[in-house]
Amino acid sequence: MSSVVQVVPGGSVTSPQGFLAGATYAGLKTYREDKLDLGLLYSEHPCTAAGTFTTNKIRSPSVDLSEKHLKRGNARAIVANSGIANACVGEQGMKDAQEAVDLAARYLKLPREEVLFCSTGLIGVELPMALLRASIGRVQLTRDGGNALARAIITTDTRVKEVAVSYQAGGRTATVGGIAKGSGMIHPQMATMLAFLSTDAPVELSFLRQSLQEVVDETFNMITVDGDMSTNDSVILLANGQAGGPLVRQGTAEAEGYLEALRVVCTHLAREIARDGEGASKLIEVTVRGARAEEEARCAARAIAASSLVKTAVHGSDPNWGRLMAALGASSVQVEENKVALYINGVCIVEEGRPIPFYRDAIVATMRGPDVRFQVDLNLGESSATAWGCDLSEGYVTFNSAYTT
Amino acid sequence: MSSVVQVVPGGSVTSPQGFLAGATYAGLKTYREDKLDLGLLYSEHPCTAAGTFTTNKIRSPSVDLSEKHLKRGNARAIVANSGIANACVGEQGMKDAQEAVDLAARYLKLPREEVLFCSTGLIGVELPMALLRASIGRVQLTRDGGNALARAIITTDTRVKEVAVSYQAGGRTATVGGIAKGSGMIHPQMATMLAFLSTDAPVELSFLRQSLQEVVDETFNMITVDGDMSTNDSVILLANGQAGGPLVRQGTAEAEGYLEALRVVCTHLAREIARDGEGASKLIEVTVRGARAEEEARCAARAIAASSLVKTAVHGSDPNWGRLMAALGASSVQVEENKVALYINGVCIVEEGRPIPFYRDAIVATMRGPDVRFQVDLNLGESSATAWGCDLSEGYVTFNSAYTT
Repeated sequence: MSSVVQVVPGGSVTSPQGFLAGATYAGLKTYREDKLDLGLLYSEHPCTAAGTFTTNKIRSPSVDLSEKHLKRGNARAIVANSGIANACVGEQGMKDAQEAVDLAARYLKLPREEVLFCSTGLIGVELPMALLRASIGRVQLTRDGGNALARAIITTDTRVKEVAVSYQAGGRTATVGGIAKGSGMIHPQMATMLAFLSTDAPVELSFLRQSLQEVVDETFNMITVDGDMSTNDSVILLANGQAGGPLVRQGTAEAEGYLEALRVVCTHLAREIARDGEGASKLIEVTVRGARAEEEARCAARAIAASSLVKTAVHGSDPNWGRLMAALGASSVQVEENKVALYINGVCIVEEGRPIPFYRDAIVATMRGPDVRFQVDLNLGESSATAWGCDLSEGYVTFNSAYTT
Repeated sequence: MSSVVQVVPGGSVTSPQGFLAGATYAGLKTYREDKLDLGLLYSEHPCTAAGTFTTNKIRSPSVDLSEKHLKRGNARAIVANSGIANACVGEQGMKDAQEAVDLAARYLKLPREEVLFCSTGLIGVELPMALLRASIGRVQLTRDGGNALARAIITTDTRVKEVAVSYQAGGRTATVGGIAKGSGMIHPQMATMLAFLSTDAPVELSFLRQSLQEVVDETFNMITVDGDMSTNDSVILLANGQAGGPLVRQGTAEAEGYLEALRVVCTHLAREIARDGEGASKLIEVTVRGARAEEEARCAARAIAASSLVKTAVHGSDPNWGRLMAALGASSVQVEENKVALYINGVCIVEEGRPIPFYRDAIVATMRGPDVRFQVDLNLGESSATAWGCDLSEGYVTFNSAYTT
């Protein structure tokens, strides 16, 4: 981690100044003992706000409504539920999304346009609005409510994902925090990635939007659990300026610390989502270097991290480099076989496209750890990228073969 | 199956007139009891010949050499080995491919340019040419040798894949036969699809090439086992004209029967490869209708058949339609949610994008059979396509997690 930023111990989305959060049990999520399933994130002060959303053409009206409200760039609250995705339910989906936003806006005394809505859970089931109406007033907003909200958005994740880092800018301390949920799917038809990010840095709207897209492309868009894209994926960033100081714009001195902090937070959350994929026991990190262009490096890294054969090899701690070569060659990027080098956990095993002798037992031993790192050098250019995934286990299949009934 | 063509009982790649085949054990494949691993397909008469090959940028020199020889359009023999893929071995790979072709050409008394070479097996291991030199002379070519050759090219397939159909054209009987192997991967680093096709129809070269590409696009290119593309995939078609009659060209009366026969043979072999995917217990057939263009229908059908979540749902006989909708939406095709209809084994479960009541136990019961059929109506146009895949089982993971050692 860069020395520019410092991790906030026990940090969460409420670590930046002026952010409150809370959650309650509304009755939407019945399959976990820890049953928080409805929550709010709220800034006490006006914000600039940006978001990135699923590109799935089948998507939840919750996503449509949040994207619409974010066009104004000044949202300052998120209402979120887990248990039901509010997707594939026809016109009722948008009506329910609007009512959920109205309920939260009334409770928080905000214009409805400043409230966003995120849902995750079952597809094809309508939201039980009576439960939301009855429960929203029970959400207690507190300065340390980030953890409760983080618990309320997870579904079959095995761990809560939250982090905050702070940095110095012009003698002031600013903080970026975040929470996320991954795509757990013990209970079928769930597969949503949600991340809520906050900062007290006074980030100018156009730079907020640009920086979020840039960092999401490098982090959340570089993780893959099973190649299936959700109807509800959303990443939202609110910036309320409570740290003070001049507006953070592109190219300013303040921009550097903010960008680094945002990158550290998103990288941490993205890696944790990958590591906690269904049935996963290991994090896979694939770095591709020497590509002709960054988009090619990203494409190659994602292709390798997403390969079922690579994922099963990692599950078995098997240094099966032929599968990496095949996945690399099958991707759409430029590859010259006789220039490719491969490393597993830092040990070179292929050079100029040909295997070089390596002590297999030693590689297998390093692959038994919780992190397996692949590095691929294409030796064709200067661009690089990193993708994260997880191993494919029998557990993944068992979880996802269960009946919906 | 169309009434135009008739299945040849016990048919294989040697069913068309004038084709001989045989196989022997050279010592390349040590992990099966049935150890044939080196074989030949041979036409007693000159042929027109066409092929389609993997688009993986990392590919075997065996593929490069076959593609080069097919440029002349008159190959009449294939030498094939299993156990070793002859891929990722540097310059030695092309030298070995050339020697394998020379060995076969000398044995068959053919110019080397009329011999093709196909390999499947371990990546990163050089062919033990001494074993090929010692063994090629033991291959006995016979009229019913297709089955032996089919056995020699499989790796971890659980079944041999072979078929032949005949049709009438101008009072004559012509036949199309074929054998194939799928991507079994108990022994790691193997994932090759090979298909050798033969016909005694006198097919003109340009039409042979065009028809093969067309039919491969509809059949072999529409199957998916795990989304990983091999370094060695090859489909080769030889036509020796021994059935007699006028040249089969595009638009002629003879073309219709030939095309139908080729389509039936390739569809059968492609389906059998999908059904016999590693660890698979079921064939998944996905038909997409009402797409704006055929390429969109193919893309959508493949995306659904390739989805890990769809595949695990089928493994559990789970009518989990939300996963189909998500996979459909995530594909690159045009989708309007409120126009989509979904059928499972002929029963409509989604109409206009919304679930309609269905008796779940009845659907689950039909999904317990060996074939699960999904039909998706996009209701946006007139194009349709079918893709084939298999369920994703714990067995797939277990097989593919094993060490290479």
